Amino acid sequence: MTGALSLNTATVQRLSLGQAADLCVRHEIPAIGLWRDRVTQAGAAAAAATVRAAGLHVSSLCRGGFFTHADADARADTLCLVSGGLVPGSKDLGQARQMIADAIGELVPHAQRHGVRLGLEALHPMFCADRCAISRLADALDLALLFPADAVGVVIDTYHVWWDASLAADIARAAGRIASYQLCDWVVPLPADMLLGRGHIGDGHIDFPPISAQVRAAGYAGFAEVEIFSQEAWDAPADQTAATVRDRYERLAGDRAPGGRPVAGR
Amino acid sequence: MTGALSLNTATVQRLSLGQAADLCVRHEIPAIGLWRDRVTQAGAAAAAATVRAAGLHVSSLCRGGFFTHADADARADTLCLVSGGLVPGSKDLGQARQMIADAIGELVPHAQRHGVRLGLEALHPMFCADRCAISRLADALDLALLFPADAVGVVIDTYHVWWDASLAADIARAAGRIASYQLCDWVVPLPADMLLGRGHIGDGHIDFPPISAQVRAAGYAGFAEVEIFSQEAWDAPADQTAATVRDRYERLAGDRAPGGRPVAGR
Repeated sequence: MTGALSLNTATVQRLSLGQAADLCVRHEIPAIGLWRDRVTQAGAAAAAATVRAAGLHVSSLCRGGFFTHADADARADTLCLVSGGLVPGSKDLGQARQMIADAIGELVPHAQRHGVRLGLEALHPMFCADRCAISRLADALDLALLFPADAVGVVIDTYHVWWDASLAADIARAAGRIASYQLCDWVVPLPADMLLGRGHIGDGHIDFPPISAQVRAAGYAGFAEVEIFSQEAWDAPADQTAATVRDRYERLAGDRAPGGRPVAGR
Repeated sequence: MTGALSLNTATVQRLSLGQAADLCVRHEIPAIGLWRDRVTQAGAAAAAATVRAAGLHVSSLCRGGFFTHADADARADTLCLVSGGLVPGSKDLGQARQMIADAIGELVPHAQRHGVRLGLEALHPMFCADRCAISRLADALDLALLFPADAVGVVIDTYHVWWDASLAADIARAAGRIASYQLCDWVVPLPADMLLGRGHIGDGHIDFPPISAQVRAAGYAGFAEVEIFSQEAWDAPADQTAATVRDRYERLAGDRAPGGRPVAGR
């Protein structure tokens, strides 16, 4: 098994949940990150059974609620939250951020009751207006720190935060709060659809080894989840994509990454 | 005259320097921001004469050196610097930032000798890899503070920094260091060429009145320079563009902006 690696289903957009689970097993990837659409498509109970039968851990669930699932084993560790941008018709970023904080406050008791941790994800500032008004790890962390550590953590996605001069300091400050670590690369030029511009680890400009080392030094022992939104990755055969994901992770961001630097691993 | 307004020549891409100067006079815009290409095209001496004959102030010169011009009156107040992204072939952001700091250190004595202030401009994080590794006003300011205030300041461009939760605090901290204030709006979706996605004040998501008020409260008494890279603005008749620039500035970002809040003005 490849230590800390997890494959997010968004990386293999064309596969059903069952096919994605088989792919992980075939490529010795021990965990899977799920998106709600795939879970809804399969049905929650069937999705849980599929993942369990494959022996996979669910490293995260993106943007929805596994909250009410009765089977604790089938629950994701973390529910990733993308907070939303400006309120329609408003230009008041402060108001948007206050609404996000209020919503987290309302969700926390539910999450605690069901043993799921909320993961606040900062999205790249280019998504601030229309998708997420939390633009830096520092801001996600400041918000998470208002709540108990077991209820609210942060999601660190290299694509969204790599550029930040305060990243190393913010990761250190996030010790005990890192709920998920996601990886994909920043490739230029960005495509017309900005959401699809992400690359395999090593294909772009992000320096992964130091970031992985910082995440591990902050005490994170969870999976490193590779989530790539890319038409090119989606058009490639899934086995090729999975092999590339695993190879790049091991060479550039995993326990045996170059330089002997310790990196995130379970 | 419209108090603090300045028209950057990038907003009227198709005009020669002489035509742009005439346009400013026709629309009672008292200052002009110049790009080097236009100055080079006209010749430095002729460019200076054109601007002087029109009675215009030069609020900034973008990305080049008026350093050696003998006539002090024809010099720009500020030389805007865009620092550059990652070193080609490298993923080391720290190295890029160190090289930028070193370069500023080398430029400072020349700038001081010629009485021009360097303006460090943070560019939006989406340009970090390929254009500018200084991504936040806070980072530009930290760098500027290493040098004398009369030699190095910061350029605040709403398009690049509007999303930052620390913006108000950073503007306050920039008191005495604001070398230029530039305005254009953030419009979504971004076009395929990210460089051309900027909108007229009021066409996008940026809340200008509080930012202008913060800039003025920090003691900035210079021009507010409207610089819009937009195919749409370029394709429109220049007089229409200039009229829109002036109207939007007065209504949304100038001294008589709504709410009675004080805003940047000379």
